[in-house]
Amino acid sequence: MTNNNTPAEDLEKLRILDRERMHLCRAAALLQWDQETYLPPGGAEERAEQLAVLEGVAHDKFTSPEFGGLLDKLGEVKDAGFLQSAPDGFPVSGFLRALKHDYDKAVKLPGGFVRECARAEGLSQAAWVAARKQNDFAAFAPHLEKMIGFAKQKAGYWGWEKERLYDGLLDSFEPSYGVKEIAAVFNPLRDRLQLMLKKITAKQAGSLAWKGNYSIAKQESFCREMMAGIGFDFGRGRLDISAHPFTTTLGFNDVRVTTRYAPADPLSALFSVIHECGHAFYELSLDSVLRYSSLAEGASMGIHESQSRLWENVIGRSRPFWEPWFPRLQEHFPKELGETCFDVFYRQLNNVSPGPIRVEADELSYSLHIILRFELEKKLFSGELSVNDLPAAWNAAMKEYLGVECANDAEGVLQDVHWSMGAFGYFPSYALGNLYGLQFWGKLKEDCGNMDEALEKKEYGAIHAWLKENIHRKGRSALPAELIKEVTGRPLSADDFSDYIEHKYTELYGL
Amino acid sequence: MTNNNTPAEDLEKLRILDRERMHLCRAAALLQWDQETYLPPGGAEERAEQLAVLEGVAHDKFTSPEFGGLLDKLGEVKDAGFLQSAPDGFPVSGFLRALKHDYDKAVKLPGGFVRECARAEGLSQAAWVAARKQNDFAAFAPHLEKMIGFAKQKAGYWGWEKERLYDGLLDSFEPSYGVKEIAAVFNPLRDRLQLMLKKITAKQAGSLAWKGNYSIAKQESFCREMMAGIGFDFGRGRLDISAHPFTTTLGFNDVRVTTRYAPADPLSALFSVIHECGHAFYELSLDSVLRYSSLAEGASMGIHESQSRLWENVIGRSRPFWEPWFPRLQEHFPKELGETCFDVFYRQLNNVSPGPIRVEADELSYSLHIILRFELEKKLFSGELSVNDLPAAWNAAMKEYLGVECANDAEGVLQDVHWSMGAFGYFPSYALGNLYGLQFWGKLKEDCGNMDEALEKKEYGAIHAWLKENIHRKGRSALPAELIKEVTGRPLSADDFSDYIEHKYTELYGL
Repeated sequence: MTNNNTPAEDLEKLRILDRERMHLCRAAALLQWDQETYLPPGGAEERAEQLAVLEGVAHDKFTSPEFGGLLDKLGEVKDAGFLQSAPDGFPVSGFLRALKHDYDKAVKLPGGFVRECARAEGLSQAAWVAARKQNDFAAFAPHLEKMIGFAKQKAGYWGWEKERLYDGLLDSFEPSYGVKEIAAVFNPLRDRLQLMLKKITAKQAGSLAWKGNYSIAKQESFCREMMAGIGFDFGRGRLDISAHPFTTTLGFNDVRVTTRYAPADPLSALFSVIHECGHAFYELSLDSVLRYSSLAEGASMGIHESQSRLWENVIGRSRPFWEPWFPRLQEHFPKELGETCFDVFYRQLNNVSPGPIRVEADELSYSLHIILRFELEKKLFSGELSVNDLPAAWNAAMKEYLGVECANDAEGVLQDVHWSMGAFGYFPSYALGNLYGLQFWGKLKEDCGNMDEALEKKEYGAIHAWLKENIHRKGRSALPAELIKEVTGRPLSADDFSDYIEHKYTELYGL
Repeated sequence: MTNNNTPAEDLEKLRILDRERMHLCRAAALLQWDQETYLPPGGAEERAEQLAVLEGVAHDKFTSPEFGGLLDKLGEVKDAGFLQSAPDGFPVSGFLRALKHDYDKAVKLPGGFVRECARAEGLSQAAWVAARKQNDFAAFAPHLEKMIGFAKQKAGYWGWEKERLYDGLLDSFEPSYGVKEIAAVFNPLRDRLQLMLKKITAKQAGSLAWKGNYSIAKQESFCREMMAGIGFDFGRGRLDISAHPFTTTLGFNDVRVTTRYAPADPLSALFSVIHECGHAFYELSLDSVLRYSSLAEGASMGIHESQSRLWENVIGRSRPFWEPWFPRLQEHFPKELGETCFDVFYRQLNNVSPGPIRVEADELSYSLHIILRFELEKKLFSGELSVNDLPAAWNAAMKEYLGVECANDAEGVLQDVHWSMGAFGYFPSYALGNLYGLQFWGKLKEDCGNMDEALEKKEYGAIHAWLKENIHRKGRSALPAELIKEVTGRPLSADDFSDYIEHKYTELYGL
């Protein structure tokens, strides 16, 4: 397929096609958001079909000969000036690289296979919701089996050898990271975290439980107040309820966050919200030149997670952050928290207490939950572990890594939505996010000074500005490894995060 | 385009294509539903683009040579047995007729034009929301002008002569009804209604206002209780809030209703809900063989409206219906309604009091609101009336037909969403619905006996069963004129409705 257009004309055409495709992807994202928040139960089956058709259409558009022809033609342009950026400042070379990456992944998947996957994913997710509710792993197992099969097929289509299928999945979330690279960072991380965890649990037995019943209406009201306070613009987004908290981008000015409320725990929903806001800030701070394009998203899952975990933990569980917010929380719950002193509260929100649920894990245990999942995924895909043996393997690893007994599968292997959607290789990004995050935070403080005083005054402008300038505005135009090097001057390492954890908890627990 | 398939194979293929198209249409309907209910303000502009792309894709699929070729080929099949119905009971000839009707309408509209319309509609609706809020007709006028232009172009593309463009729009909502046919029914209807209205207003001055402030939470709770009580299955649908109440079908088991709440009026939201439930019952009672097909919708706008207005007025404002419900309403609002006696309440909910707002109009005035809109649309399209002169013409007609002075454009010409969406020719269906509805209701009572006792016992099963058997299950397989004849044995007339109104209000007002 050839034409006589100039490269600039071809680029313009490609950007229009990309824009149409992005609109269809955003539409599909709305169908998924609705599926998790407002869809009546009767609608689940048909919604899965709708999504399959819509994703099939988006796939067909993306893999059309026109798209491929333009990509090929523009891929041959060697003019560095042209590739630098378009007249409107659009980063051409990053765009072509990202699109080529996606295109290669997509054309290798047959349209019928993509449709079949989407349909099965919808049914699998519905089955997971029911199975989790009824604590019935067996009802979900055939769906999980199917999801693993599809994921293997997918990596196979992408060209990964039979022995490296899981590498292919990992790479699709965090480009250039495979099993070997991740294990090389996770192994020492695991050792340092396990050591700290043992020191702490030796010193402190049991967990601190919140007392009282925290009205969901008041929790929601406080969540909204804090969201707005830390900079979430409700004119450009929403907060809703779903079984599993998530953030989804439905447009450049429409980024939606969800959470869930636990009446016995005033902070479970809140920290989910702060976490998801970290994701939302990223999506809401992209450079407007990227709008409508495939670059209008995060650099990778791990970089995205660095933003959410930075807000949730490094900022959101810090002493200066809570100094001005704690009195407001007390005003929402005078009966339950009016008598609590700040030091006790601060200690409690950083309480290290290994439990079965990942999304409720403390900052220290959290990465161990991830390493556990990474290990199990690795074995599921290598064939060392069968789906039927998964619950037992899960429970054994929980005991070994975290010293935790799972009471049932609902709070064990069934707790997360990811596998029901076929999202294998996703989990490691969470822990990689911790590592990226601390490396960014160190550089931010180097550039802007210590943030304690600003946090005590509820001033988040400098943090937002630095993150936007160095990370957010760039969207997906840089690869994660390039970005971390460019911003911090060093490649990714687990040291900053491990140092931070050891320093913070040594002090907190007087070790 | 030819193939060697048998007609049965061609039909199967056509049904699959139709199913994919319907899935895309349902997806677009979700984008619209979200736009009216939960979309953050910042998302409006991009949502309009998303809808334009999605509708463009659905249009392209529908107007593909494959679709057209199959329709042509199957259109030539003369085998009466084959056309009767498919092995699964699917009504083949109704399907081919409906699809051919839609196809002819769609292929005559160029893809680019369809996309342009959808985009402009999104912006126009957003402008209408703002203009209505700020009572600023001038800000909306250019959009309305554009919408009229698009509607004219549309009818032109469909092949209607320049003098009959409005006929073309009317026909798209209520096949085979044009300006002349509608005027022939509306003129005598107007005369009889105006006469009754004069008699009543001569006897009674002013309106009865509700006293008190009715908590929105309690109103919503009562709406939900009544919805469930009259047979709405929340496992297959939802109730949400939007500026203008509507019902939308997002799947065979996913039909959503919206309403809006007025703190000063406990019945405004409620009667919208009953009305929308009438629509929802229709969509939720289709024969399952129609699922996923273009026949899985109502026979026409007017037939649809017959169901909503039957529930809202004939059933929902009747004495036997309210006898068991009124005590429950009092329990929700003991302070406001605890002392109200049933007769006063019943009289008030049938209070004839002409006002500016169509959706709050009493049963008698309502059709006059419609006739007014019909007259104005007719003039806008014939060129007798310009957009700039519309507010004045609106206000003059309100005065003439209903004796009402509009305080401002927000409660006048800006009150309805329809024109902002380019839905010209839609309004007459509402009044046609009144006429169909009373003709159906007469036949229902002939077949099942007087319903008063059942209503007094909150038993709606016989009504649902009759409506499902005679109307709902057939979906769009019969044309409206065929359906009314087939069910009632007579063609449409305005007499039944006029008789009903005169009988009911002569008694109520002791005229």
